[in-house]
Amino acid sequence: MSSSAPGPTRPDGLWLNDLSVGQTFRSDDYSLTESEIVEFASRYDPQLFHVDPERARDTFFGGLASSGWLTAAVTMRLFTESVPLACGVIGSTITLAWPTATRPGDRLRAESRIDEITPSSSRPDRAAVLFSYRTLTADDEIRQQTSGRVLSWNRPTDA
Amino acid sequence: MSSSAPGPTRPDGLWLNDLSVGQTFRSDDYSLTESEIVEFASRYDPQLFHVDPERARDTFFGGLASSGWLTAAVTMRLFTESVPLACGVIGSTITLAWPTATRPGDRLRAESRIDEITPSSSRPDRAAVLFSYRTLTADDEIRQQTSGRVLSWNRPTDA
Repeated sequence: MSSSAPGPTRPDGLWLNDLSVGQTFRSDDYSLTESEIVEFASRYDPQLFHVDPERARDTFFGGLASSGWLTAAVTMRLFTESVPLACGVIGSTITLAWPTATRPGDRLRAESRIDEITPSSSRPDRAAVLFSYRTLTADDEIRQQTSGRVLSWNRPTDA
Repeated sequence: MSSSAPGPTRPDGLWLNDLSVGQTFRSDDYSLTESEIVEFASRYDPQLFHVDPERARDTFFGGLASSGWLTAAVTMRLFTESVPLACGVIGSTITLAWPTATRPGDRLRAESRIDEITPSSSRPDRAAVLFSYRTLTADDEIRQQTSGRVLSWNRPTDA
């Protein structure tokens, strides 16, 4: 019997059949260094407070802060590691907030939860799965609050 | 007379006084190569369809696609270059969508618009400025649609 699921990227990972509302996931830690903060920002967000520890002191952040987009990138790494979806983590729409600034030395982890599973009306073998996830420090300060829908497919019956 | 604006990162840039609803900005182009796509994803989003051009063919994307978070990072670079806010681009909440996948060879630009300016009720010298921006290819395909609030301050009267 054929399936419309795309080729899996992690065949042993989680299929839609394995997911349910309320399920939670927790990642390992990721330690963010000053040099990674400066390197990322030099390329993608070259603002004083992200690239120059000295001159950052007189800015809004009062010291070097990570680009929020590096926090988001690290969060994606933690999310893909801790939520091993069989066909990959394929997101479409995202909302995110950075309640506090990520700083050099932060040890970040991601904790995520499935809030909603919305089956496709036209193709019952797939669904949009709404995750909410938080990026936390070792002291449980929230660096990023995210919510996003990702696609998931049922395990092919011919597999 | 004193000011509560933080130390500017670009004193010659735009202050709140210079901004108005409907104002638009357009960035230069940024060409995205396969090697940059693979390098970024290897570090932050190590999924087959972002790191392995051959094996990406059998996945959802049908070929190598950029991590959405690299599209977001490049968009931030284009945004900071084209919207030179005096105290820097300091975002808090963001919504974004990736209607199409970013591909190797894409030449991206950002076009942004001020949709709303909401003065702080307690501190009238500052406001949250709502921008919407699109990340477009040379063929005007939309790779990312973003909206986000950034902080802005009036030009200090003692400057």
